[in-house]
Amino acid sequence: MPKTFVIAQGGGPTAVINQTMVGAALEARKRYPKARVLGALHGVRGIRDGQFVELHKVSKGDLKRIAATPSAALGSTRDKPDAAYTAQVLDGLKKVKADVFINIGGNDTSGTQQILTDAAGGSMIFMHAPKTIDNDLMENDHTPGFISAAEFVAGAFKSVDLDFRALPGIYVGIVMGRHAGFLTAASAAWREDKGDGPHLIYVPERPFSTKQFIDDVKRTMAKHKRCVVAVSEGVTTADGKALVESLVPADRLERDQHGNIKLSGSDLNRAFEMALSERLPGARARVDALGYIPRGYIGAINRTDAKEAFKAGAYAVATAEKGGASIALKCEDGKTVLKRVPLANVAAKTRHMPDNFLDKQGTQLAKNGKAYFERLLPRRFETGKPFV
Amino acid sequence: MPKTFVIAQGGGPTAVINQTMVGAALEARKRYPKARVLGALHGVRGIRDGQFVELHKVSKGDLKRIAATPSAALGSTRDKPDAAYTAQVLDGLKKVKADVFINIGGNDTSGTQQILTDAAGGSMIFMHAPKTIDNDLMENDHTPGFISAAEFVAGAFKSVDLDFRALPGIYVGIVMGRHAGFLTAASAAWREDKGDGPHLIYVPERPFSTKQFIDDVKRTMAKHKRCVVAVSEGVTTADGKALVESLVPADRLERDQHGNIKLSGSDLNRAFEMALSERLPGARARVDALGYIPRGYIGAINRTDAKEAFKAGAYAVATAEKGGASIALKCEDGKTVLKRVPLANVAAKTRHMPDNFLDKQGTQLAKNGKAYFERLLPRRFETGKPFV
Repeated sequence: MPKTFVIAQGGGPTAVINQTMVGAALEARKRYPKARVLGALHGVRGIRDGQFVELHKVSKGDLKRIAATPSAALGSTRDKPDAAYTAQVLDGLKKVKADVFINIGGNDTSGTQQILTDAAGGSMIFMHAPKTIDNDLMENDHTPGFISAAEFVAGAFKSVDLDFRALPGIYVGIVMGRHAGFLTAASAAWREDKGDGPHLIYVPERPFSTKQFIDDVKRTMAKHKRCVVAVSEGVTTADGKALVESLVPADRLERDQHGNIKLSGSDLNRAFEMALSERLPGARARVDALGYIPRGYIGAINRTDAKEAFKAGAYAVATAEKGGASIALKCEDGKTVLKRVPLANVAAKTRHMPDNFLDKQGTQLAKNGKAYFERLLPRRFETGKPFV
Repeated sequence: MPKTFVIAQGGGPTAVINQTMVGAALEARKRYPKARVLGALHGVRGIRDGQFVELHKVSKGDLKRIAATPSAALGSTRDKPDAAYTAQVLDGLKKVKADVFINIGGNDTSGTQQILTDAAGGSMIFMHAPKTIDNDLMENDHTPGFISAAEFVAGAFKSVDLDFRALPGIYVGIVMGRHAGFLTAASAAWREDKGDGPHLIYVPERPFSTKQFIDDVKRTMAKHKRCVVAVSEGVTTADGKALVESLVPADRLERDQHGNIKLSGSDLNRAFEMALSERLPGARARVDALGYIPRGYIGAINRTDAKEAFKAGAYAVATAEKGGASIALKCEDGKTVLKRVPLANVAAKTRHMPDNFLDKQGTQLAKNGKAYFERLLPRRFETGKPFV
């Protein structure tokens, strides 16, 4: 019977990652009333540095309020442990006599759990609880954090499209998403009529060509007198490079410890601005990056997302004694169910958006994509029909 | 007794400008059941070009749905009528036998009403109903559209601050606002503790200095290990020029017909990015423009704002027979009341944020600013206290 749980949060925060943390903590307290439940501050870094908070001593009321609060209340990290760091983390876990370590996060965080599992040699149980607005974890139908972020994006693009009906022009909204286009594609989830925006979506799964982009915009402008575009920050040209790599001198490219390039910034905005002003001179055009707002906006926390996130944390604790695993959200008969899956199936891998989610041109949702988002994102707003 | 009303919408759309349009239309139908109520498409341009929709024939259900929909359902315009255009608009109004023309908008729209009033010589009644997320209309305590946009901004900065607690760094969020800093200042409305972000706000009412900005950021980073900044796109250097004017070559500056410079775009983002990377090398920094999302996000429509916007439209109709005027939202004993004010008091003028809304440094709300936002933006979310 586990006596000490350690819980940590990794990677980019979401609107509901605290639900998962609190779900895990409360389940541990319920199942193992005498156990210690330690929250590591800033992920594995807090374990290495001995920085913990005693979650078994925090009142339920406080925990419930934290659960309803966006972003990672324990702090997060993007550290990727090398051999020495890994040894320090394992030491840190031993020092607090951890039996189970639950790490909540996405691809990189699950990768960290795999590294620790391999290095620990069975002395401890490593669980991974899913979290990512990118929706790109293998084995998962969708991931906690995605629905809230996707709803924000769907609502934002619906709203901007209404704005550009009133004052026509071209809008390019850049959406987070390194390798997977789910969040960008969600921009089209609440389109109703054929003329509604976003009229064009560009995701990392399809090669991006600036020439094709300009042609697409021109055609849309001719047809609808406005053009609303959603583009992933990670769109990739035919040579397999992120678009931003062809825009930014190599010595100015920023990378994190997982080797990920910093994708967003004014370079990407400017590339779109310049392409539009050169090829469609005189057209009113606006390029904005939605940036961090979608991933943790307090006004758009989806209740289903929050509940699923909570349950994923609780399930990681409830099944920990069966051994290390990753928790996955599966879809069975239209309902979300939790399953244990091998950590190796998820760790440091990327799930891409299925090819048949998009139409042949790759710029609009196809039947399968529409059905997916209709299931995950039931329409929340009834709108009237504008006169223009 | 008026037989024909014309209603139009001007300037940037808001989340509730359709409430005002529908409020005016329904009041006209109730008070003058036989009157025609014409909606001009794209503001004065639709009047000039004879493009109208017969609002007296639209079902109440459809109108109510339109009222709840963000952005200007009739379309909007930024056209500023010169003498010839003015004559064409007056002709257009005469052609449809308009008795009352209600134009819903901000400074520029009220300016248009003044131009038409002066040119028409008393042959028609020109009403102005207020609308602007900038909150910068003279005679008004606040303006329809502002509360919804301000709530979005307050929630967005609260959320981003939580995000940057988890993964520390510098965040600069650029907020719409040409001459008035109300919307940017709203970013601090839901701060709770002294350490909460936004830690720094920069508005057009106070001279902006890049050197001071960098010093402020450094001081904040030293104290809080993160720094969340809200800055108006219209911040102005000590020489009275918009910051963007000192960044963009004169021949590349875009202007609209009212002479307004296009403020936002990657130039402004880049200026902040470069200043931060040069003066705080190695610090994680992110610069984003919130862009169009705050002004019409469908997920953040405030009910008070919606009701006030509706009533302002209805009141413009209800009092039109008294003669041309602008409708203003006043605050009396803590309650919002509608008043008729002379159009000339509002037309093409700008209300600035009172000096005592900000502290001496001009980077944080002072007592009066806090009280103003507490009244307009009651806290909507209870959050837990993060551990970091």
